[in-house]
Amino acid sequence: MEKSHGLLIVLSGPSGAGKGTLCKELLRQMPNLSYSVSLTTRSPRPGEVDGVHYFFRSREDVEAMIARDELLEWAQFCENYYGTPRFAVEQAILDGQDVILEIEIQGALQIKKRFPQGVFTFIVPPSLDVLSERIHKRGTETEEVIQKRLATAIQELEYVSEYDYVVVNDEVPVAVDKLKSIIIAEKCRVKRKPFVFKGES
Amino acid sequence: MEKSHGLLIVLSGPSGAGKGTLCKELLRQMPNLSYSVSLTTRSPRPGEVDGVHYFFRSREDVEAMIARDELLEWAQFCENYYGTPRFAVEQAILDGQDVILEIEIQGALQIKKRFPQGVFTFIVPPSLDVLSERIHKRGTETEEVIQKRLATAIQELEYVSEYDYVVVNDEVPVAVDKLKSIIIAEKCRVKRKPFVFKGES
Repeated sequence: MEKSHGLLIVLSGPSGAGKGTLCKELLRQMPNLSYSVSLTTRSPRPGEVDGVHYFFRSREDVEAMIARDELLEWAQFCENYYGTPRFAVEQAILDGQDVILEIEIQGALQIKKRFPQGVFTFIVPPSLDVLSERIHKRGTETEEVIQKRLATAIQELEYVSEYDYVVVNDEVPVAVDKLKSIIIAEKCRVKRKPFVFKGES
Repeated sequence: MEKSHGLLIVLSGPSGAGKGTLCKELLRQMPNLSYSVSLTTRSPRPGEVDGVHYFFRSREDVEAMIARDELLEWAQFCENYYGTPRFAVEQAILDGQDVILEIEIQGALQIKKRFPQGVFTFIVPPSLDVLSERIHKRGTETEEVIQKRLATAIQELEYVSEYDYVVVNDEVPVAVDKLKSIIIAEKCRVKRKPFVFKGES
């Protein structure tokens, strides 16, 4: 069987859906999955490490990379840039490595245009109450910013129709199992396989 | 969230791929899955029970059912009819019940035309040597019938392109895990969900 390309798994969804938690747990359980670190111009939150959680870059740096088409996608969200460095992702996939991206919805939709063979998965909270609670708990923004995020999150739920899969993040272990199943199943899809049945044993 | 219809999971593939073993193990591990018992005009093999493994029926009975359009699919294979009673499958799916069918390729392709939203999974043996060995081991047919089955099986491998998924049946537990993942993933597909996000908690 010819070597298959890696999968690009895009985890997306509104702020507060818990996609970060799911992504982290998925990476822990699937060590062959590689995480694509995003760029951002926002300030690090307590505990966030440059090059691990994000590449924290200046507006000038990011705008220069956009001009040189070095980002696979980029978006502005709450007045900050977020983006995905292009080269590392493309190279990994060609090498047969599965890559996971955890990104905002605007970015995911850009990637879908450029790379429709990605696995686009939308993470949703179990209810609006839970969503509101999670955004409040983060506790790093002012109430005004929180309300803005919540309103955006509610609007963003409409984008589910653009995705291949939807996973309700009610209980983390259940949601992670679903994500693992999605990855395993996608690897069995006929359209992804240059399937050649070998006569030789 | 509105109630979803059940899935119709079609396990198919050439004779000797081991789809029967996989189907049996899958049903054991997923008790909510319901098995659609096929009809056949062939004689029962030792240990096969009418209404459990197959409904064993006369040619006259099956031809009458075909005339009344009571079969979801039917095919002739090695001079016998095989078919799937329509009503039970359709009713179960409307009730939200997942149904699994284990059928020959001709039958699977008929179902695909009538019911393209089914989950069409092709089971293949890991090599032609293993295929030959498995067909021989069954030991219920003459060498001429075996050779005919083997030649048909090799031709039938071409049909993989008509399917959604392909699972290589090398080790049964690994193949069963893949089938379980396919079912779980398909239940997360956006196109299968009349997704309504409820504001109420």
